[in-house]
Amino acid sequence: MLKVGVVGGTGYTGVELLRLLLGHPEVALTVITSRGEAGVRVADLFPNLRGWTHLAFTPPDPVALAACDLVFFATPNGTAMAMARELLGAGVRIIDLAADFRLRDPSMWEHWYGVPHAAPELLEEAVYGLPEVNRAAIAGARLVANPGCYPTAVQLGFLPLVEAGLVDLDRLVADAKSGVSGAGRKAAVGSLLCEASESLKAYAVPGHRHLPEIRQGLERAAGRPVGLTFVPHLTPMIRGIHATLYGFAAGRDWDPQLVFESRYREEPFVDVLPSGSHPETRSVRGTNLCRIAVHRPQGGDTVVVLSVIDNLGKGAAAQAVHNMNLMFGLAEARGLDHIAVMP
Amino acid sequence: MLKVGVVGGTGYTGVELLRLLLGHPEVALTVITSRGEAGVRVADLFPNLRGWTHLAFTPPDPVALAACDLVFFATPNGTAMAMARELLGAGVRIIDLAADFRLRDPSMWEHWYGVPHAAPELLEEAVYGLPEVNRAAIAGARLVANPGCYPTAVQLGFLPLVEAGLVDLDRLVADAKSGVSGAGRKAAVGSLLCEASESLKAYAVPGHRHLPEIRQGLERAAGRPVGLTFVPHLTPMIRGIHATLYGFAAGRDWDPQLVFESRYREEPFVDVLPSGSHPETRSVRGTNLCRIAVHRPQGGDTVVVLSVIDNLGKGAAAQAVHNMNLMFGLAEARGLDHIAVMP
Amino acid sequence: MLKVGVVGGTGYTGVELLRLLLGHPEVALTVITSRGEAGVRVADLFPNLRGWTHLAFTPPDPVALAACDLVFFATPNGTAMAMARELLGAGVRIIDLAADFRLRDPSMWEHWYGVPHAAPELLEEAVYGLPEVNRAAIAGARLVANPGCYPTAVQLGFLPLVEAGLVDLDRLVADAKSGVSGAGRKAAVGSLLCEASESLKAYAVPGHRHLPEIRQGLERAAGRPVGLTFVPHLTPMIRGIHATLYGFAAGRDWDPQLVFESRYREEPFVDVLPSGSHPETRSVRGTNLCRIAVHRPQGGDTVVVLSVIDNLGKGAAAQAVHNMNLMFGLAEARGLDHIAVMP
Amino acid sequence: MLKVGVVGGTGYTGVELLRLLLGHPEVALTVITSRGEAGVRVADLFPNLRGWTHLAFTPPDPVALAACDLVFFATPNGTAMAMARELLGAGVRIIDLAADFRLRDPSMWEHWYGVPHAAPELLEEAVYGLPEVNRAAIAGARLVANPGCYPTAVQLGFLPLVEAGLVDLDRLVADAKSGVSGAGRKAAVGSLLCEASESLKAYAVPGHRHLPEIRQGLERAAGRPVGLTFVPHLTPMIRGIHATLYGFAAGRDWDPQLVFESRYREEPFVDVLPSGSHPETRSVRGTNLCRIAVHRPQGGDTVVVLSVIDNLGKGAAAQAVHNMNLMFGLAEARGLDHIAVMP
Repeated sequence: MLKVGVVGGTGYTGVELLRLLLGHPEVALTVITSRGEAGVRVADLFPNLRGWTHLAFTPPDPVALAACDLVFFATPNGTAMAMARELLGAGVRIIDLAADFRLRDPSMWEHWYGVPHAAPELLEEAVYGLPEVNRAAIAGARLVANPGCYPTAVQLGFLPLVEAGLVDLDRLVADAKSGVSGAGRKAAVGSLLCEASESLKAYAVPGHRHLPEIRQGLERAAGRPVGLTFVPHLTPMIRGIHATLYGFAAGRDWDPQLVFESRYREEPFVDVLPSGSHPETRSVRGTNLCRIAVHRPQGGDTVVVLSVIDNLGKGAAAQAVHNMNLMFGLAEARGLDHIAVMP
Repeated sequence: MLKVGVVGGTGYTGVELLRLLLGHPEVALTVITSRGEAGVRVADLFPNLRGWTHLAFTPPDPVALAACDLVFFATPNGTAMAMARELLGAGVRIIDLAADFRLRDPSMWEHWYGVPHAAPELLEEAVYGLPEVNRAAIAGARLVANPGCYPTAVQLGFLPLVEAGLVDLDRLVADAKSGVSGAGRKAAVGSLLCEASESLKAYAVPGHRHLPEIRQGLERAAGRPVGLTFVPHLTPMIRGIHATLYGFAAGRDWDPQLVFESRYREEPFVDVLPSGSHPETRSVRGTNLCRIAVHRPQGGDTVVVLSVIDNLGKGAAAQAVHNMNLMFGLAEARGLDHIAVMP
Repeated sequence: MLKVGVVGGTGYTGVELLRLLLGHPEVALTVITSRGEAGVRVADLFPNLRGWTHLAFTPPDPVALAACDLVFFATPNGTAMAMARELLGAGVRIIDLAADFRLRDPSMWEHWYGVPHAAPELLEEAVYGLPEVNRAAIAGARLVANPGCYPTAVQLGFLPLVEAGLVDLDRLVADAKSGVSGAGRKAAVGSLLCEASESLKAYAVPGHRHLPEIRQGLERAAGRPVGLTFVPHLTPMIRGIHATLYGFAAGRDWDPQLVFESRYREEPFVDVLPSGSHPETRSVRGTNLCRIAVHRPQGGDTVVVLSVIDNLGKGAAAQAVHNMNLMFGLAEARGLDHIAVMP
Repeated sequence: MLKVGVVGGTGYTGVELLRLLLGHPEVALTVITSRGEAGVRVADLFPNLRGWTHLAFTPPDPVALAACDLVFFATPNGTAMAMARELLGAGVRIIDLAADFRLRDPSMWEHWYGVPHAAPELLEEAVYGLPEVNRAAIAGARLVANPGCYPTAVQLGFLPLVEAGLVDLDRLVADAKSGVSGAGRKAAVGSLLCEASESLKAYAVPGHRHLPEIRQGLERAAGRPVGLTFVPHLTPMIRGIHATLYGFAAGRDWDPQLVFESRYREEPFVDVLPSGSHPETRSVRGTNLCRIAVHRPQGGDTVVVLSVIDNLGKGAAAQAVHNMNLMFGLAEARGLDHIAVMP
């Protein structure tokens, strides 16, 4: 049994991570820390976990965390970078679900997150935890940067096209729609049911923090700079991301369907739908799946990719568990064999 | 008082039209016809109208309709084209909320709607009822083709750019999100709450019937063919359309904000938001407003337009009432002075 | 034109009140105060009001308020009681949408609200603003206590039975279901879309602050103490209250339908549905209506009353405007002629 | 491995049953029949099941069904009663998720369901599948009548009080709120998102088919007739039932909390919450749990029980799997160890 600790875990990514870890047959969750909720039993904060754990939140304790094989950070941005060095030094491996180690360039981090990076020397070592790109490196990593939700959906949708150079790399458009849980469990007026239901809006059109992360991934795949427009939208549902991606193809002598099927044939958590399909976000709710369909409307030169994930699943906690499985040599799907609840 | 009749009116466009007409100070609603609901009191079908009308649905009766000044068709596609000639002959003016008279080319109609057009000789006379484009023609029209919901949101968002030739006309992208009421009041599994809530999907990516209507409008504005990719999405809310539009600008020596403000300065129902804004669909619910914001993210060469309407309001019934006001010389906003209910 | 001021108005009751006042043909809204939002334009906080007012929130200013004919308090509990004496002294009439003047017994207020009452000498003068009970007194009042949302729905549903002594007054049960807007526009975790949608729960079963208010009204009607069990529920919608009321009848020699129709025959805003009906909350959304149906299931001795209102409409702002109309001799329905938007 | 067949299975109860069976480690799902969907792959109808089964719906085939150890009927009412005799004769055990075998009195069935019972001779043998009441009988049963959703929530909430005679058995009130999935996957206008979201209503107040089923269970527990008022409500969510139960206690010399804890101490799927709690339906979504809290507001003589289940889980499919586990001697929780997905 892996001894696993969680730092943070009072938000939506946290409760989803706890759900998956408590149901994982090879994991012993030994410690979960939170300054704000210290002393509160986990099941009192999250009633779905009642009967599944007797743990209570504790104040962060380096000794308890150092006794773990693996520590997940389900914290706001900036926490993991302050604690990572010490934990790694104690031989603990780390998966950070926040953004601290996603961008390889510390100046880029500072530009988008507004504060200097506290552990720039770890950035080179950190592995970007997108298994479909970095499977081998993840397996050997001490420190994994779990991808953002939008970046997961958008990269998986664009990668087959970008890696093969099949679309105009200067004019990529990613129109993404997210459920409200992406905004977290913060008490914020904009996330109230009365504000966010029965309405829809774009946000952060001038620039969202996930833009540089997506661009970094696509540029690594392309081997050159890319021009990307990314517009996220807030939609009236709890979970789910639907990324609608637009690329302009140079020629038409290739079949997008084959490109996608070929790229993801061996991937256990990417499901390329049959030609002509329209994936629904609910079909992946609570799972680690990304479902993708690709279209070339009216046989023209625009390629449209539809990519859906659960923002808290493949977009956060389930992907983190997938990374854990890879890091510790477990079967990739161990503890991730959930079928989406529908309806 | 205008004597007004409604043919159909048992769907969502119908009930919204009835709400507006029953509250309109210059309208006397004299007849509403429905084969399926003949004999049913309007207020029994639509409980919000209880206390506002004693009318019952009647079987279509040419004599009763011929006594009206104006007849609205809130019917499935194909009904208005079968009855228009006779009504026009009787001196009745017509606003069709279905698609029968929107496409000027009857072969285009047959291609997208699957049956031959029944009144092609009326297509030339029919005026496309987008007041922001055809105000004068509408005022003099006998037969107005009320625009579709997506076409209204997309055209109003693209027109300032297309009319001025400011973006690459071969690569226009319209990513549109609609509430479920766009699918109508039909008993269809896909529109059930249990299917359509807590999920999001694209649909009709290979080709939606509103595509030729949008393209026709943009090509008229551009004076040349345009390349348009249009992807509609079903989103878990009742009302609202959010069109997110992408255009690639050749140069950067113009200010999109000024272009939009200038284009719509005199328009009572198009509200260009301040620079940097993100309109919400709920802010126009139940109204005839289109709210628009325009962005050029990171100062690049992509222009992003955010255009929101109520699909049953400016996208259907309220725009039809606006057209009625224009046709009969009433103040444009007469009967349309509703403030959106929020939250 | 009435010169009207609003104190508070940054919550949901406030925005609904502003919507109604800005559309009211006899009202000039001259001042709206908020410490927290001072300087912010009303339309920037509430985008539905864009184009309808240029007012900005101002810090509370006794001089500006004293120049009004009427001041509404759409504030948290405890504000109106601190300012009422001075305003009344300046000849301003007051409608308080909070709870400050609803309970006639100051010790009851202190028991349920936890602080002493700041203006107990005004309690006797204050008129409880339920027009169906106190129409004449409201017309002559300087100070009106606008009823709570649950109390409006529950009292209107029980009054015909209680006034006539037709049910066991010791065993009244009110099971009430409210939309989330009843919790206000506060940033609270429990009101987040991700917490409150796709779920349902009872709350405050040990005792809700509206219980003494309801009991006071029913006891006044009964002329004796009543035994009332009141259980509110939080339901996943924005607006609406559905009160399901249970009473045990002594005999069966009376027709509940006739009792209700007779009691409310002259009431413009209480709509007794035909026998066998089930009112829907959406049918009164945005209006001042209360719709009621009454049943005696299987001809037994239980009477079931179904009473629906919009908690922000008849349950708050619209009822306040109704009270205003009464106080100033306007037609009762003036400015309240809205048809519910449906769907 | 149990060889299991499903008759029907194209509705919401069906897809939930399939999800549970496909994830059950001791079940081999060998056949699923549907006349209407014959030939359609299960995963094409229910996209959440994609990757979990290659089965297609087949026309009902007695031979294939007779080869099963157990057949579930997830069919409309009236199907199981027509096929049960033959299957039982072939040695197949049956769990019927419809109502065919729930009422012991065939005349009662005919009264409420409108047609004569087709297999009255099986009614005595049929075991009502509420494990908290009939555990031993279920284990030995050939034919189990799986309880209705409302009856499960209401009976579990009332049983401790009724069995012990602690409340007035002539005045029981059950106010129940259900998600829309309770109405099934039928294409019906009333279940459309645009009709059922953002609204709430009671329905079937004159008499709902679950009333006799609940009454039968409570009368069995009481050993005498009971007076029950049952009012179901349609609420704007997909899954979940919240039953709010009211009983009038004779004395106050007993502690409701102890009564409930004592009654359900050994039950793996009934979770009595601590005193003062308010269970949320989402906390049991997708599970076989019933969570219950009991209150005596203000120390009065009314007892209020709050009982929540997932109508498709403990209210249908999960309870059916629980029954299967009992019938075949498996661990009770086998295949039912799901943690509710939250948020």
